[in-house]
Amino acid sequence: MVDGAKSVLELLTSEYEVTHLIGTRAFFENNDDLLAKLNMHQEIVTEKQLSTISALKTNDSVLAVARYLPGEPFKLETGEYCIALDRVRDPGNLGTIVRIADWYGITKLVCSGDCTDFYNPKVIHASMGSFTRVVAYYGHLKSLLAGQTVYGTALQGENVHHLVFGNGGIILVGNEADGVSEDLNSLVSTWISIPRFGAAESLNAAIATAVICDNLQRMR
Amino acid sequence: MVDGAKSVLELLTSEYEVTHLIGTRAFFENNDDLLAKLNMHQEIVTEKQLSTISALKTNDSVLAVARYLPGEPFKLETGEYCIALDRVRDPGNLGTIVRIADWYGITKLVCSGDCTDFYNPKVIHASMGSFTRVVAYYGHLKSLLAGQTVYGTALQGENVHHLVFGNGGIILVGNEADGVSEDLNSLVSTWISIPRFGAAESLNAAIATAVICDNLQRMR
Repeated sequence: MVDGAKSVLELLTSEYEVTHLIGTRAFFENNDDLLAKLNMHQEIVTEKQLSTISALKTNDSVLAVARYLPGEPFKLETGEYCIALDRVRDPGNLGTIVRIADWYGITKLVCSGDCTDFYNPKVIHASMGSFTRVVAYYGHLKSLLAGQTVYGTALQGENVHHLVFGNGGIILVGNEADGVSEDLNSLVSTWISIPRFGAAESLNAAIATAVICDNLQRMR
Repeated sequence: MVDGAKSVLELLTSEYEVTHLIGTRAFFENNDDLLAKLNMHQEIVTEKQLSTISALKTNDSVLAVARYLPGEPFKLETGEYCIALDRVRDPGNLGTIVRIADWYGITKLVCSGDCTDFYNPKVIHASMGSFTRVVAYYGHLKSLLAGQTVYGTALQGENVHHLVFGNGGIILVGNEADGVSEDLNSLVSTWISIPRFGAAESLNAAIATAVICDNLQRMR
């Protein structure tokens, strides 16, 4: 289920198969060129009706229902970077990380089975349409990351401002409170840190992911 | 009002004058050394009682009430950087920006009068204790920023990866949807952008602030 005009318009031009479109009269009138070409079930409702079925507190335009994309096995191409998430539980954080990945040209996310669901409506909403361009693979991180170059994020690691990244690999981001699980330590090739100039104890997981992606891409 | 053990413990060792402390028996027992030295009103309640008065959905430890710090006029020291926020409305974003500022050693935030309130409990909570080390100045940005070196953030500006920052100034971050107000354009010395490597339309205001602070501090 995808809520809001921005996300739904991105969904309609993506690979996803949309089965239902439920929107206000204004939404259908404003987008009649696009919608005339589409043949999924379309239904006009009032803003009040929409808000009762939407996952958002307020949704004054449209929601869509789409089929999951068919799952494919995870594979990292030569020279490719992706982000792995270990127990990231907050849907807002996951959605924001999807948007960050999309900004920095990273199209694959590997998630431990106990990360929040990629298709949680709050994740979809926070990704601001980027969920249509980033694929998430859920599974056992130990198997998915085995044999790859893994950059683990931690409070004590090599300074990301001076690090020379290799030719592809995985940025591993840990749980919001605990960081990376101990049982993944043996998979980490290099621990990396964001240098601190003030007194905050830590950075939010999504913020840290953005800063590391920025450092990665500026050096490549 | 400050919710949660982490934030309250930071509050108790800060400049703020705490007037009330309302917590569970477990909180008081776990922190008896610290609390014995303090003489504000202390009250033991159950977790259920605490949740009914807390601004958080769940608060299982403590909340505190403190007096506002006395306001002082905003002044930027030679060589100092600060962050200015134009109409940042989301309390989670503001709190996260406070935490980012604290991480990067920036201790002053200048906020337009229509930014969300620094003392909103959601801001305090999202700052993870950093509100005790960062001071916010609210007012008319046109007057507060006049005569300063202002780096405005925009989607089209100088690439922050190549920019040479000067000796102090203000990073101006705009509203989540609209960016920086047009009536502030004339104050901006340099427009700066974060380079995009993928397809997302934009980055969240807090994410952009973090990436710019990281670039600023790595170059200084």
